[in-house]
Amino acid sequence: MKLSQYFLPTLKETPAEAHVMSHKLMLRAGMICQHSSGIYSWLPYGLAVMNRVAQIIREEQNKIGCNEITMPILQDADLWRESGRFDNYGKEMLRVKDRHDRDLLFGPTAEEVVTDIFRRFAKSYKDLPVCLYQIHWKFRDEIRPRFGVMRGREFFMKDGYSFDLSKESTRETYKKILKSYLKTFKRLGLVAIPVKGDPGPIGGDLSHEFQVIADTGESKLFYDKKYDALKENIDETDIEELMGVYAAAEEMHDANTCPVASEDLKEARGIEVGHIFYFGDKYTRSMNAGVMGPDGKMFYPECGSYGIGVSRVVAALIEVNHDDRGIIWPTQVSPFLVGLMNLKTKDSATAETCERLYSILNQKGLLPLYDDRDEGAGAKFANMDLIGVPWQIAVGPKSLSTGQVEVKNRRSGECHLLSVEDAVKFLEDALKSVL
Amino acid sequence: MKLSQYFLPTLKETPAEAHVMSHKLMLRAGMICQHSSGIYSWLPYGLAVMNRVAQIIREEQNKIGCNEITMPILQDADLWRESGRFDNYGKEMLRVKDRHDRDLLFGPTAEEVVTDIFRRFAKSYKDLPVCLYQIHWKFRDEIRPRFGVMRGREFFMKDGYSFDLSKESTRETYKKILKSYLKTFKRLGLVAIPVKGDPGPIGGDLSHEFQVIADTGESKLFYDKKYDALKENIDETDIEELMGVYAAAEEMHDANTCPVASEDLKEARGIEVGHIFYFGDKYTRSMNAGVMGPDGKMFYPECGSYGIGVSRVVAALIEVNHDDRGIIWPTQVSPFLVGLMNLKTKDSATAETCERLYSILNQKGLLPLYDDRDEGAGAKFANMDLIGVPWQIAVGPKSLSTGQVEVKNRRSGECHLLSVEDAVKFLEDALKSVL
Repeated sequence: MKLSQYFLPTLKETPAEAHVMSHKLMLRAGMICQHSSGIYSWLPYGLAVMNRVAQIIREEQNKIGCNEITMPILQDADLWRESGRFDNYGKEMLRVKDRHDRDLLFGPTAEEVVTDIFRRFAKSYKDLPVCLYQIHWKFRDEIRPRFGVMRGREFFMKDGYSFDLSKESTRETYKKILKSYLKTFKRLGLVAIPVKGDPGPIGGDLSHEFQVIADTGESKLFYDKKYDALKENIDETDIEELMGVYAAAEEMHDANTCPVASEDLKEARGIEVGHIFYFGDKYTRSMNAGVMGPDGKMFYPECGSYGIGVSRVVAALIEVNHDDRGIIWPTQVSPFLVGLMNLKTKDSATAETCERLYSILNQKGLLPLYDDRDEGAGAKFANMDLIGVPWQIAVGPKSLSTGQVEVKNRRSGECHLLSVEDAVKFLEDALKSVL
Repeated sequence: MKLSQYFLPTLKETPAEAHVMSHKLMLRAGMICQHSSGIYSWLPYGLAVMNRVAQIIREEQNKIGCNEITMPILQDADLWRESGRFDNYGKEMLRVKDRHDRDLLFGPTAEEVVTDIFRRFAKSYKDLPVCLYQIHWKFRDEIRPRFGVMRGREFFMKDGYSFDLSKESTRETYKKILKSYLKTFKRLGLVAIPVKGDPGPIGGDLSHEFQVIADTGESKLFYDKKYDALKENIDETDIEELMGVYAAAEEMHDANTCPVASEDLKEARGIEVGHIFYFGDKYTRSMNAGVMGPDGKMFYPECGSYGIGVSRVVAALIEVNHDDRGIIWPTQVSPFLVGLMNLKTKDSATAETCERLYSILNQKGLLPLYDDRDEGAGAKFANMDLIGVPWQIAVGPKSLSTGQVEVKNRRSGECHLLSVEDAVKFLEDALKSVL
């Protein structure tokens, strides 16, 4: 992509309304644009990052046999009357009337809708287990939206729902998804700790929140330091062991009753990026979604629901990956891998080298963003640092006089003066994990 | 994908509420599930097809320099008051009040939102041209939703918006997008004719609808038969020539004044799948989105908007690609390329051959859907025909006794008895255009 063709309205100044780093940087990097309170447009760069995050989540969901669907944004209130939640859900639920005066609502979650889909098709235990998910827009009418997309009203979320034969098999599903979530967050470059949570309006008797460790996290938590070793080997670690690690939000933690010795306890701040629930037959029973069991008797399948705040993950990624110059994307979520800068657009040798490099980088799948604009070198460096492309190549007459270009790693700052050919080889090698 | 792991609730009977073929087949093939009047859930198979359609549209948009964004679903009514449309738009617009009693609306289109984004960032003629698009859910509160997703209330749409320096450059943009649309529809396997249209509530003085020729189309149209030759070479045909071809909806056609001789006129039925508009400075002026011109004076950019009904395209594809046994997907939109059927699951040689084929087909990128369920051969053939996977491989003890499997083309019905290795080679060759 050539920057001259890309709608990337970066800002030099931080808008006054932004108080947390991810909000500031998402606005400054031209990722989002506020539409109204808690509602944002996602501009090309922000959308591209969010799509990468969503794709990683999707791949991990598909790996464990979950099936992707898309449920309606506007849900029928009558389904929520069946479950009893229409009147009980608070003002966070946006209620709507259509032209025929029928009650609809902008879905904040989809237990009722998915249970309705399930009951239309599932007739017997042979149709189980089923696990359906979507990655879609939700709305919660927060009384005081803040922190940009971190606590917005319209947000992008992965929500999944499982239907199982028995309590035991649901617990196995729950554990399988919990482990899959830990792998998902690890692939995204985040350290997430499962913390026993409050089921809230979803209901049920078992739930875990996933807290990403970040200095700027909104909540304080305590956890057993042995998690730091376990998290390195999620694949090989037994799920029971992962779930058995002590971790608690500050308000749930009591130093006197904590089973972990104080010297083994770590304190951290967290950002909640996911929440999973086991709630049994709460919805299948209230919505009459029974199926025939192996014994010929009707039973109500046992269920769980599983959410990841996708737009929130984008913000969390910035909270843990930035410096005073801007964002530093982990390569796996970055829409561009190499930021190519022409430091002197009027110099024909520089322009030719850039065009040649741009073409080679594209061919090699190194996803270049080429700053071909008529701007000064300082502005280009600052802009590329701000938007956080993992690697940079600066091409200017000075280094070109010895046939070289400058390759820089955005995170470490390490620099190399290399020939064009060596620069490409170097980057292919450095980025081979994502090529 | 193994069918035993896939949520594909196909129906043997056609639901009584469906009257058009695409609606019947989308329900029967487990693609969609009705939620409420004009609102559907998209099940895994339907969603996968729609994603393929959307991806082709996206690629063609990106090729001509359009930038993808995602705008809010819930839009601020105040923006629509600026343009004057909030009170003028009819009951198709779903109006909503949030908890603070502020007016919002579920966007039926996004001229106001995109003009607001534009005016925040564009300051001078140097920031032009800009063309932004999204592929997102819209809502129009149709008084009588019908024909499944063909005329639903919640629908998936590509909507794009251009901002240009002058009337002349906007007309060039308009023509560029018109041609790109024709290429897009051709890539999707559809014949679309641009027909001069009614701008309706969008406004403006130039617009074209794109009508897909289908026997089951809801509107009748007349067009110059020379279009049939031109459509084969859209890339090489001058856009003025394409736009100059006579084509008119029945209600706009007058045999007495028609410039085309009656023997050169063709009559057809059409399904509207796209609509583009040139409306000048209607929104930039009313919303005060002026920028500085090359002469130092403020001016209002000239604009157009460009829509494709993505969910409707899925239905249109079925209207023109089906037979009495079910859907016949064009390969470029089919989530699966090869339907592999185990005709006797209890036979170990059959099962082994299927597993081996499934593994090879996956490796080769031939996207197999493997029917590994414990069902009879007849049911499997009928199901695979219904869902329209372009190629089928049937594996059973009879043909296996001579070391062969049966390869069938869903559209032509042509069959070949081939060894496993030859079957794979044959399919790789037949499908090389999409591999």
